[in-house]
Amino acid sequence: MPTVQVPAAIDPEAVAQARLGIPDQRILELVVEAFGALSDQTRAKMLYALVRRSLCVRDLALTVGASESAVSHHLRLLRDRRLVRPVRREGNQMEYRLDDHHLGALFQEAEYHADHVRSSLADHPYPEPPSTDP
Amino acid sequence: MPTVQVPAAIDPEAVAQARLGIPDQRILELVVEAFGALSDQTRAKMLYALVRRSLCVRDLALTVGASESAVSHHLRLLRDRRLVRPVRREGNQMEYRLDDHHLGALFQEAEYHADHVRSSLADHPYPEPPSTDP
Repeated sequence: MPTVQVPAAIDPEAVAQARLGIPDQRILELVVEAFGALSDQTRAKMLYALVRRSLCVRDLALTVGASESAVSHHLRLLRDRRLVRPVRREGNQMEYRLDDHHLGALFQEAEYHADHVRSSLADHPYPEPPSTDP
Repeated sequence: MPTVQVPAAIDPEAVAQARLGIPDQRILELVVEAFGALSDQTRAKMLYALVRRSLCVRDLALTVGASESAVSHHLRLLRDRRLVRPVRREGNQMEYRLDDHHLGALFQEAEYHADHVRSSLADHPYPEPPSTDP
């Protein structure tokens, strides 16, 4: 087998530390799958709508301004990726809710991040650091 | 203009409440853009690596097991979407860090969610509600 030349680390300790932050392969796949499901405006809207309460398909469609069939289609994908799950209400009404409470927190942080981006884009151009960080 | 028949809400109060959870259009676009950037394994790995500390391109490449040129390419995209930003270290070394602290929290929640999915997939099959969908 040919030898591949791997460059030496500038800071081997930094590489070792940073590696500890990377989740194992299966978790990483699930994370990437979840983020992929969220990179669609209608689905993102649906999930933000479900942070506050569970909704039936029709009410979810009205909330996000999409057709019931489009919403049903997206719900199947979100259900497959374990982002939403069905719950049965009184009167046999089927509703959908977020699959776990971490998702609400995740969407909240994403919104904070977006808000941070929006304000920094509005207030000042891309900030270049004047000198060194500690 | 033709009249479009919009079906009535099953629970108008629920629709009103749920709508309050949806961020405004610009925030939603930024959120979807961020999630899109994260739906790639190498980029997700890079960002998890940067949660713990800033890294230069070479060390980041070694950390995630990708080439420096691939990592540079991804960094440009992540920088454009305001997920990472450059910081200048002593000795003129350029390093990259997460753009804001909400991102670290977001990745943590995504990892918790993925962990939740993994354990529930292992423990029990997808819980099907007892009867039909509406």
